[in-house]
Amino acid sequence: MNHLASLFSPSSIAIVGASSEPASGTNSIFLTPLRQYGFRGPIYPINPKVSEIMGLPAYPSLSAVPGPVDYVICAVAAGLTLPLVEECQKKGVKILHIFSAGFSESGPEGARLEAELVSRARRGGVRVLGPNCFGASYPRSGLCSMPDMGKEPGGVAIISQSAATARDLTESGSRRGLKFGKVVHYGNAADINETELLEFMGEEEESKIVAVYLEGVKDRRFLSVLRRVAARKPVLVLKGGRSEAGSRAALSHTGSLAGSAQVWRAVLRQAGAIPVETVDEMEDLLVTFTVLRPPQGRRVGIVIFGGGFCVQAADECQNEGLQVPALPPETQAQFREFISAVGTSLKNPLDVPPAVVWREDRNFRTLAVLDSCPEIDIILTRAFIPVSTYLEGPHVLEAQAGAIIRAGKELKKPVVLVSRYMGSPGSGEIMVRLLEACREGGVPLYPSVVRAARSLRTYLEFMEKTP
Amino acid sequence: MNHLASLFSPSSIAIVGASSEPASGTNSIFLTPLRQYGFRGPIYPINPKVSEIMGLPAYPSLSAVPGPVDYVICAVAAGLTLPLVEECQKKGVKILHIFSAGFSESGPEGARLEAELVSRARRGGVRVLGPNCFGASYPRSGLCSMPDMGKEPGGVAIISQSAATARDLTESGSRRGLKFGKVVHYGNAADINETELLEFMGEEEESKIVAVYLEGVKDRRFLSVLRRVAARKPVLVLKGGRSEAGSRAALSHTGSLAGSAQVWRAVLRQAGAIPVETVDEMEDLLVTFTVLRPPQGRRVGIVIFGGGFCVQAADECQNEGLQVPALPPETQAQFREFISAVGTSLKNPLDVPPAVVWREDRNFRTLAVLDSCPEIDIILTRAFIPVSTYLEGPHVLEAQAGAIIRAGKELKKPVVLVSRYMGSPGSGEIMVRLLEACREGGVPLYPSVVRAARSLRTYLEFMEKTP
Repeated sequence: MNHLASLFSPSSIAIVGASSEPASGTNSIFLTPLRQYGFRGPIYPINPKVSEIMGLPAYPSLSAVPGPVDYVICAVAAGLTLPLVEECQKKGVKILHIFSAGFSESGPEGARLEAELVSRARRGGVRVLGPNCFGASYPRSGLCSMPDMGKEPGGVAIISQSAATARDLTESGSRRGLKFGKVVHYGNAADINETELLEFMGEEEESKIVAVYLEGVKDRRFLSVLRRVAARKPVLVLKGGRSEAGSRAALSHTGSLAGSAQVWRAVLRQAGAIPVETVDEMEDLLVTFTVLRPPQGRRVGIVIFGGGFCVQAADECQNEGLQVPALPPETQAQFREFISAVGTSLKNPLDVPPAVVWREDRNFRTLAVLDSCPEIDIILTRAFIPVSTYLEGPHVLEAQAGAIIRAGKELKKPVVLVSRYMGSPGSGEIMVRLLEACREGGVPLYPSVVRAARSLRTYLEFMEKTP
Repeated sequence: MNHLASLFSPSSIAIVGASSEPASGTNSIFLTPLRQYGFRGPIYPINPKVSEIMGLPAYPSLSAVPGPVDYVICAVAAGLTLPLVEECQKKGVKILHIFSAGFSESGPEGARLEAELVSRARRGGVRVLGPNCFGASYPRSGLCSMPDMGKEPGGVAIISQSAATARDLTESGSRRGLKFGKVVHYGNAADINETELLEFMGEEEESKIVAVYLEGVKDRRFLSVLRRVAARKPVLVLKGGRSEAGSRAALSHTGSLAGSAQVWRAVLRQAGAIPVETVDEMEDLLVTFTVLRPPQGRRVGIVIFGGGFCVQAADECQNEGLQVPALPPETQAQFREFISAVGTSLKNPLDVPPAVVWREDRNFRTLAVLDSCPEIDIILTRAFIPVSTYLEGPHVLEAQAGAIIRAGKELKKPVVLVSRYMGSPGSGEIMVRLLEACREGGVPLYPSVVRAARSLRTYLEFMEKTP
């Protein structure tokens, strides 16, 4: 465990193969994010050809670094990695993170090199992360190779065999309010593997939920470890390579062999994990588990401008196993005090007219009435279309944003916002503002009612099973 | 049919209840779009209190209008509509479109008023559209109450009982390349109903595909008409009010009573229509049917930057019944000419490195190699994340946009782009540019591989059944 603590909170980092070109891949993936995220220990760029890189003194070799180094990022060609292991051993390095590709994922020759590398490293007391990976990120220590993950630390842990997946989840997820703790892209898992990482995150208190993307399993203990961790905290698992073609792709991506979709689903469920099918579903669940205030039941109160949207939202919620009960007369009477009911339903879904949606106080009041209704557990609302309505004046968007912030902060029940990206110029800016309001209010945002309802259902079913 | 021709191509329009306030609802929904879309006939605002509205002479009453009027938009309170019917009759009006709410959707009193209104109109030879609706839009004639639908006319017809749904589909759909013909929001369907509209669009050549959103059915002939139309062109049907709560909402939205979800699905399928569950699914299918170049089979070639994304895309395509065959050695050899294969799969999915994606010529070449491969029917690619990569320099986005435009124009096989909105500042602008490139190249864009694959499957299954 000592080594894995250094994986996320190293006291110093050396980057072997750092480039003197500020915009180079190595710098933009490692050096720049480390400085952006405020890594506090010394950073040593290693490059025999220059004396300075981005304002830091560069060293010709790892051995030439004056102080101790416990984390090495290696970005040189695969063929140059073996001699580095010996240097790491001499320097007392704990983690050798191999960013370089060209190992087992590339064929038999790379696999032999990988085996030799790991065998030498183990003998020397050095643990290897990768090869072929972006490595660890941890906002609390300023370690970062996922520069769009957000700096505010939190309890969402990610173990991913795919860099693209980890970057997708951290970038998009952070906009939806996810706060990340330990995030690791572990690549080929030649030494440190999914099981050891899962065990580590399962045993510590800081990781509140663990999302795992894996293509293969390297450790026979995986299922027993998963069972133990899943008994303590929610574990979401997306298994890549469930299909024949996906399995072929996984073989060349990370050298993984795969089992069938059905078998994986059943096995993961039996272990107490939550099997997920797509990155979208995983992100939704992370949002539901960590951003949503825990609901007391599955009865949804729906407030939407647009009769058809109301009808569809009710269908979609019920279709996913949520309940949309008719509101009691007292609640309807409370609505009638400030909503004219011509052409508008006050029963649930509540079809609210523009005169209500476009004013923050009334918009908030509709949500507050549902908050006080004993028949409702979850409040779901939706940003309206068309986008041009928002563009007519900032008050329309601000009314919605303001009501969401207040509802998130002041109401007792969980509030859910649905907003669809429309592709129109201006739609992105509206989403950015609504996402900002949701983060401020602690409100989850979903791109569709179906995705919200499906995620709520999975969450509620998991919570019902959990003692 | 004479009346329905006037519904979409009226020679003149009167707006009863037009407001002297340029930003009023009536003006922004009707008068402004009519002028934006270039309606060529005279437009007569009717308002007894003013002499001019937005530069047009206003008239105190319909009777006071000097020329003939065949289409009347009525935006006055429900209680004031009955006297208007008589005026319409005298004036020889063909279509009385009632925008006003407060009829059958609001309760028994409104239902009585609605029945009386329709009965008087019919006796007078006037057809009523609505009440409680936005009415017809038709870019070809400049008739428009869906101002974000796009001006370029096309063959996508929409019959919707929900305004929000029609606006959502037209705004978002037009960004994805849908070109609309006759679009109508028909509200309570007191006179002109879903069946008559479907029959009309089924019999004419101009509507190539019809998307129907309905909450209830007013005409016993609906299924027989649907069967007849579905034998001639694809008809997508989203039935709102399939659940108990949705049905309750539909009752207050449009006064519709509903059947169960299973029954509807079976009945629609039997009639040859394509039942859909959500607006997202409907929009995807309209894009697949009208933007995608028709594929010759279900074998997908996948080109994506990111090994994990490749694995997941293969899983998701196969899970939806598409095939992702391994590429023949000749095709792989063609890739090897310009793609270094270290850490990269050339088998399918093709995991392309940044050096390829970030250059338009190489990016296009990967797609062109798949175009010439006899084992592939559909080419699927994905815009990469993170968003910040695009923001580093416009060349990255332009390489992707340029390759998509070329591929759409020059290749024989259908090309599909997947791009996910990420919520980051800048993500909206990137999507706007990619959507623009897709429209230019005639390439469909989907927000996820799952949505693309599911839509392709529904399309392919429909085409296989169709002689």
